[in-house]
Amino acid sequence: MNQEYDPLASVQAAGPPGTISLVYGLPDPATFPADDLRRAVDQVLRERPYLALQYGPEQGYGPLIDYLRAKLAREEGLVVERPYIMITGGSAQTLDHICSIFTRPGDLVLVEAPTYHESLMLLRDHGLRLLQVPMDEDGLLVEALAERLEKLAYRGERARMLYLIPNFQNPSGTTLALDRRREVLSLAERYDLLIVEDDVYRDLLYEGQVPPSFFALDSRRRVLRIGSFSKILAPGLRMGWLLAPAGMIERLIGSGYRCMGGGANPLVANMLAVYCQQGLLEPHIQHLRSVYSERRDAMLAALEAHMPSGVSWTRPKGGVFVWLTLPSPRRATEVVQQARQANLMVLGGDPFFAEVPTGQHLRLAFSYVTPPKIREGIEILGRILS
Amino acid sequence: MNQEYDPLASVQAAGPPGTISLVYGLPDPATFPADDLRRAVDQVLRERPYLALQYGPEQGYGPLIDYLRAKLAREEGLVVERPYIMITGGSAQTLDHICSIFTRPGDLVLVEAPTYHESLMLLRDHGLRLLQVPMDEDGLLVEALAERLEKLAYRGERARMLYLIPNFQNPSGTTLALDRRREVLSLAERYDLLIVEDDVYRDLLYEGQVPPSFFALDSRRRVLRIGSFSKILAPGLRMGWLLAPAGMIERLIGSGYRCMGGGANPLVANMLAVYCQQGLLEPHIQHLRSVYSERRDAMLAALEAHMPSGVSWTRPKGGVFVWLTLPSPRRATEVVQQARQANLMVLGGDPFFAEVPTGQHLRLAFSYVTPPKIREGIEILGRILS
Repeated sequence: MNQEYDPLASVQAAGPPGTISLVYGLPDPATFPADDLRRAVDQVLRERPYLALQYGPEQGYGPLIDYLRAKLAREEGLVVERPYIMITGGSAQTLDHICSIFTRPGDLVLVEAPTYHESLMLLRDHGLRLLQVPMDEDGLLVEALAERLEKLAYRGERARMLYLIPNFQNPSGTTLALDRRREVLSLAERYDLLIVEDDVYRDLLYEGQVPPSFFALDSRRRVLRIGSFSKILAPGLRMGWLLAPAGMIERLIGSGYRCMGGGANPLVANMLAVYCQQGLLEPHIQHLRSVYSERRDAMLAALEAHMPSGVSWTRPKGGVFVWLTLPSPRRATEVVQQARQANLMVLGGDPFFAEVPTGQHLRLAFSYVTPPKIREGIEILGRILS
Repeated sequence: MNQEYDPLASVQAAGPPGTISLVYGLPDPATFPADDLRRAVDQVLRERPYLALQYGPEQGYGPLIDYLRAKLAREEGLVVERPYIMITGGSAQTLDHICSIFTRPGDLVLVEAPTYHESLMLLRDHGLRLLQVPMDEDGLLVEALAERLEKLAYRGERARMLYLIPNFQNPSGTTLALDRRREVLSLAERYDLLIVEDDVYRDLLYEGQVPPSFFALDSRRRVLRIGSFSKILAPGLRMGWLLAPAGMIERLIGSGYRCMGGGANPLVANMLAVYCQQGLLEPHIQHLRSVYSERRDAMLAALEAHMPSGVSWTRPKGGVFVWLTLPSPRRATEVVQQARQANLMVLGGDPFFAEVPTGQHLRLAFSYVTPPKIREGIEILGRILS
């Protein structure tokens, strides 16, 4: 094996040697349950290779679908009938497929400001025009959304879709308040918007409760909810799921992409079904909550201890990101440079804005780095900002 | 496990009990090297779970890329430098990604008549307008292609892309002659067309030689060549590769889809790298050639023995399909019905045409069914047509 192919090196998740990186919100590979997954795939390839190695049903492997339905019922009280769910190749594949089938280039898409920069890239690849809506510590500002929609209507335009990350958002760490979810939904009704909720962090909850999803509030008409095994198990599996109105699931399942290629990876889906049916996912998620909440606490305590006055930051109740706001006139791009010179890697916030960025933000990820390194990194950042 | 989820049942590859199906060109699951793949994934999850379960590089897992480069050099004398190849999630994912990045709805795409019906679905999902070009036993008719391109130019329109399956085509079984490949390429130059060659059957060769691919004839400018492990190993792995000009590979690797989701399934890519590096793929392909060529011979001999005069069919030198032409005024839709009543499942040819179909064709697949069943099926078809 050639060292140059190591994706840990290629994404520099840990940063170059001698540095501390708070850039990537990757799962810590030390958490991967490799042995349990190995036993699951071993069982699958011994017992049903004819199934796991063949084309699979377009909707995805049924027992995995049913495991997810039972999980949703148990944890959220959400009854998801079979026609409302499908297995996917992860959230990027799902968002890409949604854009291919339900949008056309030139369509207007509303997004949070800030939002996940690589989702913005994907939406732009589909030729979509992006409009941003500001947020505060409780998520999207409903008045601002209403105003943008009204202005569009006034100009005779309409938006096709609202893309948001309602829980422990990437990059801001904020969670959209329940009353705002209801108001957003009512605006979506009024202006006939699709809502795509990218809900991959939901299970990484460290305190309080997660509000009901948009899909839970309206499963029949206009909400597509994206789920993924990447953050709660392992990204290398490239597997997730989609909840959506039956007609939309039917359209995605009946698309050329799915008919030509079959359902999402049958081998991985079979393996995950075995792993999940053995009851192994729930304790694993508990383990992640304990590991990551300790890291979040370490980061928040270090910020408290080392940030000079004027710097503010979010206090996420879950997920893997803290969003830091610099006092004017400090510019994020300069701070990123200064940090790099001090062997600390942090990400400037500008790419997370679909329109004009503020230039005042940093995203700090706490999932990949151990608490001592987090403390050391934040201390360096504190020195730079003081 | 619930029987209803069995994809063999769901796609009815073997046909309902008591029937013979010549519908699906699926690999025979009896050929799947499950034990070898099981040992490969076991090794990966023991030795490098941190790599196989994490996000991977957008281009795909390097050692698998290098294995494929060595295979192409050895078998085709084709030198493919690193920037000209990427790992993909199979041919459907690749074609979908190509359409998202390199086409826009309304673009004109030229296709063979007939061609793979599920590729037509996928192209239509992207809002592409399809124009068909007729074929004979040596593939696409170059004069007809030239004429269509000329007419488009005369109307001030241009086609964006030519999609074709040059080897052992689905559904016709034909292989595009080398001189025609050169002529098609020269037309593509003249009219500035992208050529997408879907080359997933290349290795299933039973006699003669496969002509150089379009990519081998022009790797620097306008050819994207799709490869896949589905037909030569197992569709459930959902993995393939793409050869294309470096700038196009760069654009696909740098797309939001790849940046957000990372490279094609890292777990499967690691597993395949181990399997392939052990030298197991080449003897497996030899085994498939022997199994499927026996089935092709069985089908061709049975057709010779049982078809009445007026019926004609292709004699593929590889792949998994024979294309049968009925004498006028026999209609394929009626024959399909009559066959079903006689417990034989065959596929009518109409969906394989992007524009007006002839109504006179059947596609017969020989990969999934054993020689005795092939003989029995063709005998039934012979009775219906006599």
